[in-house]
Amino acid sequence: MEANGEQYAANFSSIKEAQKRISLYIHKTPVLSSETLNAMSGRSLFFKCECFQKGGASNAVLSLDEDQAIKGVVTHSSGNHAAALSLAAKLRGIPAYIVIPKNAPKCKVENVVRYGGQVIWSEATMHSRESVASKVLEETGAVLVHPYNDGRIISGQGTISLEFLEQVPLLDTIIVPISGGGLISGVALAAKSIKPAIRILAAEPIGANDAAQSKAAGRIITLLETNTVADGLRAFLGDLTWPIVRDLVDDVITVEDKEIIEAMKLCYEILKVAVEPSGAIGLAAVLSDGFRKNPAWQDSKKIGIVLSGGNVDLGVLWDSFRK
Amino acid sequence: MEANGEQYAANFSSIKEAQKRISLYIHKTPVLSSETLNAMSGRSLFFKCECFQKGGASNAVLSLDEDQAIKGVVTHSSGNHAAALSLAAKLRGIPAYIVIPKNAPKCKVENVVRYGGQVIWSEATMHSRESVASKVLEETGAVLVHPYNDGRIISGQGTISLEFLEQVPLLDTIIVPISGGGLISGVALAAKSIKPAIRILAAEPIGANDAAQSKAAGRIITLLETNTVADGLRAFLGDLTWPIVRDLVDDVITVEDKEIIEAMKLCYEILKVAVEPSGAIGLAAVLSDGFRKNPAWQDSKKIGIVLSGGNVDLGVLWDSFRK
Repeated sequence: MEANGEQYAANFSSIKEAQKRISLYIHKTPVLSSETLNAMSGRSLFFKCECFQKGGASNAVLSLDEDQAIKGVVTHSSGNHAAALSLAAKLRGIPAYIVIPKNAPKCKVENVVRYGGQVIWSEATMHSRESVASKVLEETGAVLVHPYNDGRIISGQGTISLEFLEQVPLLDTIIVPISGGGLISGVALAAKSIKPAIRILAAEPIGANDAAQSKAAGRIITLLETNTVADGLRAFLGDLTWPIVRDLVDDVITVEDKEIIEAMKLCYEILKVAVEPSGAIGLAAVLSDGFRKNPAWQDSKKIGIVLSGGNVDLGVLWDSFRK
Repeated sequence: MEANGEQYAANFSSIKEAQKRISLYIHKTPVLSSETLNAMSGRSLFFKCECFQKGGASNAVLSLDEDQAIKGVVTHSSGNHAAALSLAAKLRGIPAYIVIPKNAPKCKVENVVRYGGQVIWSEATMHSRESVASKVLEETGAVLVHPYNDGRIISGQGTISLEFLEQVPLLDTIIVPISGGGLISGVALAAKSIKPAIRILAAEPIGANDAAQSKAAGRIITLLETNTVADGLRAFLGDLTWPIVRDLVDDVITVEDKEIIEAMKLCYEILKVAVEPSGAIGLAAVLSDGFRKNPAWQDSKKIGIVLSGGNVDLGVLWDSFRK
């Protein structure tokens, strides 16, 4: 797809190729709905449970040719991407080197180990993470797979829209969490290729609102610091995701942390889906006053919400049970 | 279906009728799987997410004729049945009177209110619950719908097997939580009608093992007290469920509370499904030494696990987030 004469890092045909490539390796995720949440929001909501998806990096790993693949893959993300990359590498039978800062939450490290990734520790700073990753690249000859600023990742994420619009063709709007922009770029490219009038909205925490600021400024804005409970949404747009977000994302809805927690609670109690705060932000957005009272979105009636991730740290809950 | 010359409270044709009756009112629930859990258990596991089901009492409510229905329905269960009955009654436009003991967990009361049930308080004793329910029956002329000892409920639950075996025809075993026996009676009746050689196993907490004791004794055994974290599994078999459990449930696997909590943790962290302890007991059973090392179950290779309920009280988790 092109817009403004610009070629993006992914397009409808790379997304359809990704779907063929990964179809044997991914789960088809269900779409849930709830009359209670429909009544609360005043819209018809359809929740695409990507939090059940374990194969989020399959396209990137399966795209590698044999000579590259055999040396393995590297990343210095410690979130869902790290677990997904570990699993995809395991399925292909190649090593995954995951650089993780020493202060990462235990559940994220456990997920990487569970899916067969090799944990390589770094200090907490981005500088240390990057330099450790560079050293691993040098020593192993492995390929760096960035969590979002990568055409293969964007194409893989785009397959969500192919599946979602097949399951619920009548969607007029899709709301997607935004962090580095990989997920929403893929979703937007595929959805607007199938249904050009569909509205794509990003949901972002106020404490990490670089996408909202970037859209307003017309260029990539990064923040000196971020402050949000949604720790999966603290990354900034990259040079490959920004042009897609700029052109194809209709707007960014920002929400407060307390709205995210309230939405997360509704996901557990009503949908019975165990999401992390980042994953619940789409529901927070659709329930926010900023969205509900905005005349511009009154005609968003049938709204798809992507529930992403699931790395919630449940230590506190288990501890309370074990007492 | 008959066995031992006995007619049960439900049968394959009442279950197929229930399916026709409720098809517009229920969600088709997804089946999830996980390579990690397959590796841990040494079997292929298929999780039927009935915890996403909101329509668990639809058949009972839709079966009522108009004259009966208009006066409403009553129950003195405060668990998932109360919420399901409230919702089914709301959809039919009739009142649901839910007798709830004053010490019931807040989340259960909230669920009833959310689905439109009228809460009527009783003391915590079974005597008080029953006498308050009797008074409501007398004053309103409403119909008592028992949470499990009711052919309409058993038939409705049986539709789970119709759906499950359509989604995963190769199942050789289904493991179902057992409490009063309504869920497993329906599942067993339907599954053995479709696939007579299928194995049906009950999963029960050691601290509420009336079903295991009843099977061993050949008659209904009730307990003076129960002690388990799985508060949805504390009911005893009834006169309508016992004959079905006696004849069609192949065995009862008992598990300890700490195994239930561990399985619940795996449901959250790996499946990303928010179940209550009762709902996770099937996974606890399949991971227990008692099951894994028992030669009798070695040929259970493709195991369906019914994940039921979802009324977990998440207060503690939210409080920790709000600090």
